[in-house]
Amino acid sequence: MSTAPIFRRVALIGFGLIGGSIARAARAQALASEIVTTARSEKTRARVTELNIVDRVLATNAEAVQDADLVILCIPVGACGPVTQEIAPHLKAGAIVSDVGSVKGAIVREMAPHLPANVHFVPAHPVAGTEHSGPDSGFAELFIDRWCILTPPDGTDPMAIEALGAFWAGMGAKVETMTPDHHDLVLAITSHLPHLIAYTIVGTADELAQVTSSEVIKFSAGGFRDFTRIAASDPTMWRDVFLNNKEAVLEMLGTFNEDLSKLTRAIRRGDGEALFEHFARTRAIRRGIVEIGQDSAAPDFGRPHPPLKKAE
Amino acid sequence: MSTAPIFRRVALIGFGLIGGSIARAARAQALASEIVTTARSEKTRARVTELNIVDRVLATNAEAVQDADLVILCIPVGACGPVTQEIAPHLKAGAIVSDVGSVKGAIVREMAPHLPANVHFVPAHPVAGTEHSGPDSGFAELFIDRWCILTPPDGTDPMAIEALGAFWAGMGAKVETMTPDHHDLVLAITSHLPHLIAYTIVGTADELAQVTSSEVIKFSAGGFRDFTRIAASDPTMWRDVFLNNKEAVLEMLGTFNEDLSKLTRAIRRGDGEALFEHFARTRAIRRGIVEIGQDSAAPDFGRPHPPLKKAE
Ligand SMILES: NC(=O)c1ccc[n+]([C@@H]2O[C@H](COP(=O)([O-])OP(=O)(O)OC[C@H]3O[C@@H](n4cnc5c(N)ncnc54)[C@H](OP(=O)(O)O)[C@@H]3O)[C@@H](O)[C@H]2O)c1
Ligand SMILES: NC(=O)c1ccc[n+]([C@@H]2O[C@H](COP(=O)([O-])OP(=O)(O)OC[C@H]3O[C@@H](n4cnc5c(N)ncnc54)[C@H](OP(=O)(O)O)[C@@H]3O)[C@@H](O)[C@H]2O)c1
Repeated sequence: MSTAPIFRRVALIGFGLIGGSIARAARAQALASEIVTTARSEKTRARVTELNIVDRVLATNAEAVQDADLVILCIPVGACGPVTQEIAPHLKAGAIVSDVGSVKGAIVREMAPHLPANVHFVPAHPVAGTEHSGPDSGFAELFIDRWCILTPPDGTDPMAIEALGAFWAGMGAKVETMTPDHHDLVLAITSHLPHLIAYTIVGTADELAQVTSSEVIKFSAGGFRDFTRIAASDPTMWRDVFLNNKEAVLEMLGTFNEDLSKLTRAIRRGDGEALFEHFARTRAIRRGIVEIGQDSAAPDFGRPHPPLKKAE
Repeated sequence: MSTAPIFRRVALIGFGLIGGSIARAARAQALASEIVTTARSEKTRARVTELNIVDRVLATNAEAVQDADLVILCIPVGACGPVTQEIAPHLKAGAIVSDVGSVKGAIVREMAPHLPANVHFVPAHPVAGTEHSGPDSGFAELFIDRWCILTPPDGTDPMAIEALGAFWAGMGAKVETMTPDHHDLVLAITSHLPHLIAYTIVGTADELAQVTSSEVIKFSAGGFRDFTRIAASDPTMWRDVFLNNKEAVLEMLGTFNEDLSKLTRAIRRGDGEALFEHFARTRAIRRGIVEIGQDSAAPDFGRPHPPLKKAE
């Protein structure tokens, strides 16, 4: 049994971790009759041609969106406004225009004004990723069982929302709709603040006078190495996230700082009861995440462990 | 080819993640002629008997250390002083007494005064672990390629240090020696502060008014879920760590807070250059950790991804 592709032509602007994963998944699931792509640099376009995942690699954004039924910007948040302005005159009437940006309020503010009235604008954010980037980093399984959040403006054609939702569901994602502002609050705590904290602590460790960087690296298995993974994410992407979700991030930071002060005070006073109570409470959240399948129950994320060599 | 066991009788006081992993690894590698163990509760002792990993499960600490050549306390840091006092009269002359506590200055202060002059005291800390605990959580491969830090007091018999080092090396660990105070500084930044921060942010997320806990759990794949793993560690163990490594943790917290203020200011001002510069710098540390084999290079820690189901 087979279903017809959801879209005739899908155009991906940008082919990094997310664009490349969409291309691989959409092809594997036959969600489009044709997938075309472009990227800013000649180097990435050449590599995408070599990879042979998409039907055509085009030289410009204007050519890429030509005749496309679905256009997805898979580029840093800060680039979405200018690129939308550039492609707007070349969009087909009735096309769906979307993105994958990690911030949604700013995306709507920057993209919507440039779009002609005869296209459907359905911003999207797949809550999935890794610390790697570039055309080789994507994989078809990235979105499986992860949520993709759609933030369509009021009055968007329900058929367009449904078609884009079906496209994401076809790649294995679960689809949810909310307002851009609520998205930005939720992601501020579940993604943006964790990244900021991880970037901070890795920077702190790098500059200590009392402990050398090589010691930090050697003895990182006590917890620190998990933060370095997050702090190895793409700097351009994350700069754009913090520039474009300032208010929500600053708000969450304020609450975080209050809570950190409370725990600091408990440590200073030697208040074991307060510490124990806090540390016991946070376990329940972990359990919830594992229960709904948003993380592996395997210890240590299921990290590989080589076998013991027999004593000789 | 086979080597003789390093110790005749090894006694493990406590059989949780670390004690249970030592028992499994030492048995797999035949590092001891006999492994005996005990645990505080009847329940754990019964489970350890069932698991059938050690030679004998004893009812009391006093019985367990009888005639042992190596005694390792595998219990929370705060329990090490009282238990040392309890076992001291029953130790064999010439025995090596060690521990696995995540803090070392306090361990030396709490344990050393109780020990008779005719035993060797070699504190140790294997920098390896998972968020799980209890008798079923251990596994023989836990210490492979991880460092085990020894902090012997000045004047300790070099033969005792060497024997304990060989025992840890036999379980796959790399062995390093340093002072207790330096250990506590290094671990404050590579393990204790990361845990404190993770516990804080998970607590913050749990109490927000604007975002529900179920949203936090659903959309945790953007980074937050990595923090919840760390914040799911044993509350008793971590209470004891913070009560016993107060000064070093507060010192690292001070530096962390300064750095967080700097990044917060950059966000508030929209200083993209400062953010980019910071985010680009922290990647190098991650590279160092992967290069020396302290973490997997696989994206996302090598987390499992189910395959795409074919569209039907
Ligand atoms: N990484 C994640 O975990 C994740 C998760 C969910 C959503 N997102 C969002 O997905 C988007 C892309 O992220 P990614 O991880 O796929 O990044 P990536 O791997 O670094 O790829 C970025 C792509 O954007 C292109 N690009 C960069 N700057 C551009 C500009 N100024 N104008 C036009 N194109 C530009 C790059 O072209 P060249 O290759 O030619 O330089 C590249 O093809 C971002 O908006 C991010 O917020 C990321
Ligand atoms: N978990 C890690 O990642 C890790 C890594 C390196 C070092 N360490 C250190 O290893 C030690 C043990 O940690 P773990 O992870 O193995 O803990 P665990 O799995 O919770 O096991 C703790 C063991 O200690 C016993 N115990 C608890 N409180 C006690 C008390 N007051 N008196 C006597 N025995 C007591 C428990 O007995 P019952 O089962 O009968 O309650 C249990 O057998 C700690 O000092 C910790 O700092 C832990």
